[in-house]
Amino acid sequence: MISEAHIHAFYAMLDSKSVSTDQEEIEPHLHEWRDKFKGSSNLLLKPSSVQDVSRIVKYCNEHSLAIVPQGGNTGLVGGGIAGLESKRAEIILSTKRIKNHIAVDDRDYSITADAGYTVAELETEATRFSRHFPLSLASEGSCTLGGIISTNAGGVHVVRYGTTRDLILGIEAVLPNGEIFSDLSTLRKDNTGYDLKQLLIGAEGTLGIITKASMKLVPVENNITTAWIAVQSAENALDILSRVKEGFSETLSAFEIMPLSGINMVLEHIEGTRPVLEGNHPWYILLELGTSSENTPLQTMLENKLADFIDAGLVEDAVIAKSISERADFWKLRESMSEAQKHEGGSIKHDISVPVAKVPEFLNIANEAISKHFPDARPTPFGHLGDGNLHYNIMQPKDADKATFLGEWQRMNEIVHDITVSFGGSISAEHGIGTLKKGELSRLKPATEIAAMRAIKQALDPNNIMNPGALFI
Amino acid sequence: MISEAHIHAFYAMLDSKSVSTDQEEIEPHLHEWRDKFKGSSNLLLKPSSVQDVSRIVKYCNEHSLAIVPQGGNTGLVGGGIAGLESKRAEIILSTKRIKNHIAVDDRDYSITADAGYTVAELETEATRFSRHFPLSLASEGSCTLGGIISTNAGGVHVVRYGTTRDLILGIEAVLPNGEIFSDLSTLRKDNTGYDLKQLLIGAEGTLGIITKASMKLVPVENNITTAWIAVQSAENALDILSRVKEGFSETLSAFEIMPLSGINMVLEHIEGTRPVLEGNHPWYILLELGTSSENTPLQTMLENKLADFIDAGLVEDAVIAKSISERADFWKLRESMSEAQKHEGGSIKHDISVPVAKVPEFLNIANEAISKHFPDARPTPFGHLGDGNLHYNIMQPKDADKATFLGEWQRMNEIVHDITVSFGGSISAEHGIGTLKKGELSRLKPATEIAAMRAIKQALDPNNIMNPGALFI
Repeated sequence: MISEAHIHAFYAMLDSKSVSTDQEEIEPHLHEWRDKFKGSSNLLLKPSSVQDVSRIVKYCNEHSLAIVPQGGNTGLVGGGIAGLESKRAEIILSTKRIKNHIAVDDRDYSITADAGYTVAELETEATRFSRHFPLSLASEGSCTLGGIISTNAGGVHVVRYGTTRDLILGIEAVLPNGEIFSDLSTLRKDNTGYDLKQLLIGAEGTLGIITKASMKLVPVENNITTAWIAVQSAENALDILSRVKEGFSETLSAFEIMPLSGINMVLEHIEGTRPVLEGNHPWYILLELGTSSENTPLQTMLENKLADFIDAGLVEDAVIAKSISERADFWKLRESMSEAQKHEGGSIKHDISVPVAKVPEFLNIANEAISKHFPDARPTPFGHLGDGNLHYNIMQPKDADKATFLGEWQRMNEIVHDITVSFGGSISAEHGIGTLKKGELSRLKPATEIAAMRAIKQALDPNNIMNPGALFI
Repeated sequence: MISEAHIHAFYAMLDSKSVSTDQEEIEPHLHEWRDKFKGSSNLLLKPSSVQDVSRIVKYCNEHSLAIVPQGGNTGLVGGGIAGLESKRAEIILSTKRIKNHIAVDDRDYSITADAGYTVAELETEATRFSRHFPLSLASEGSCTLGGIISTNAGGVHVVRYGTTRDLILGIEAVLPNGEIFSDLSTLRKDNTGYDLKQLLIGAEGTLGIITKASMKLVPVENNITTAWIAVQSAENALDILSRVKEGFSETLSAFEIMPLSGINMVLEHIEGTRPVLEGNHPWYILLELGTSSENTPLQTMLENKLADFIDAGLVEDAVIAKSISERADFWKLRESMSEAQKHEGGSIKHDISVPVAKVPEFLNIANEAISKHFPDARPTPFGHLGDGNLHYNIMQPKDADKATFLGEWQRMNEIVHDITVSFGGSISAEHGIGTLKKGELSRLKPATEIAAMRAIKQALDPNNIMNPGALFI
């Protein structure tokens, strides 16, 4: 429990709207949205300015009070939930009210905004100036700018625009000593010492609190072509990816793969979905090209390329969306994969990446290992082949006991993660470590790297006040 | 001086080819190529493997011996020259012999290579697999992979592909404690704790020695269109840049600007150059578009766009290169800017960046301040408008005394840098700090950031053995 004396101190330094000890108000901040994590805290701080954040952190640093920063609370690994792991009482610091300033510079192709704006709000503002904020996530209506930076969020357009890290021009943050780090310029080039903002990106709130950022924008894309492609194997999908890059490199904005079993689950459980192509095919690709140039004949170019692929035996069947609603249908199949899996019982999840060219080999070896360990389990991997990131989910056998299956979670994780690491892969491609995966991180990350991470954490946060339950065991 | 006892220890731990105390062999490593810096050292180590680098660094860390890592020795700020600033004797550690392994994975669009390969060698290897390494620098025949990473090199294609940082997938390095940091995967997504490699990028050898890296490749571009465009003002150039991005965003690979005075210097002093357009125009733009897609009618699209610009009064005159040799002529004008300025006497140089949209305003204010301070001095700024990076060089007045003019170096630097910082700009966009600019860095970088940099340096290199003369005062 944070003591009454400390709570009074916060009331004294902040306006009353910024402090809450009301459990009813605090409650939603302690739940992960899938109800997978449930934390505890008796104090929620909701500052609305960087100065207030600085005051809070300075006070916490002086008194060694632990802070868990939280944005839109859309994380999947328990990184933003207070009271999950740390032995100390933890204050929730919500950044959602830091939301006073947002500005697009259209000729600079940049947007500068406070941390509390959602990704959808950034895009809305960009669109007013004929610009586009190219990060696209399922949670874009809720997730905040501060949150996507602290978790280095990915999404479906990474193959084209990179992760959040690649879109960042500048950051303002409060460091663990309460000082304001202000590197908010929109520079494309700056070689003046260590690029400190890179450390804050993806640090999951353990090195400071992001309060504002400048991000890259791109032109609005109004020439978009989307294809649904059926192939025999992941190997063929990889070949298609490689060749599409040769012809369309600059315009390839999504390359997603889904197995037949996953598509069948969607068609069975999700209302308003229908098969795109006739017959059954082992794998489906959702491919999207986009450009701001209306004169580039993207669709014709893709039609020709797909015809070549069919002739070469690489593609079994394919169709290009003829309307916006048909495009939406394609995307609905892809975006319903997670939801559909819920209806099939327990699912043991992984968010792994391997080098793009190793995906087919990884799938063979992982599927074999899983089937050896749990013969009727149903691996249903899907995701971003374009950047080597698969959501390697393993469904329970039909009609099996869910609890028994989920009891295998840790063992299955170990099997999949060991194989991932043997491919030079990552056990957390885009979701982060949070509290959920810190055991696996400590088991699998080289000791040299853990030691360097600890040295940096110790140097910048000697009192270990910033999100002490996350990342490190 | 490094003592005989230490030198014997290095002979004992390394093969004889890796150690030199021969001043004739050492000498070229102590000169900057323009003869602007001249250092000193009595020991050159030339390890050929990461294991040897690790042995050397461990020994140096135990005995607090200072090391200055050096790649192709093409730096411009004295960051790779031993014995310039540090009060301790410094060992030169050349990474040029770390050059045993280079491998392209074409379907992964990646290349993994030892630190000693030059940028030109990386490109040659990539081309064998129909891939392209998109960093392009004047020094590409000499500068090494380790060097470009340690300095986060830029060049003429940053507007399209970003700086070296944006091209890096993985790094192997020896940390100041001698341990090997090995994060060589080619992952596009990896959120497993702090991204430590980001700290090593652009650290100028102060946090470790890069021994190997994995870099992104792109498809070979065989559809290239290059234009030479005359405009009235930098403001018009900025408008053109912004509009070209709208129509050609994905394909814009260079957008360089040069003032009339600079072009006249080139035409006067550099053999084999000729004017591209008739008449005199205040500013010239070199614009290049490129794609791997042969079916995109880039040239026609650009012709139409330029016609629009002429109609709108944005462009005074323009021409598109009709042949490879004409394209080379355009580039020769741009690439001879530095060389031509040498023939005009003394030149006080700056490598600054400001937000792209602020370049015209910056130029107005800087030019005015310089003309107030030194009325006949001739600002001759040129460079990468596409990414806001200008080489803001100030030429001496015609027929003035060179030494007197160059005596103004520091004061001119202060004037230009103060204005740069007032625009949220950088005093070192791409060349780095080295020993040359550490005074200005310490004067202009916020204390919070310097303190955080020092904390990290202290945490990772407590004995301050890695390039102790660079970055920090």
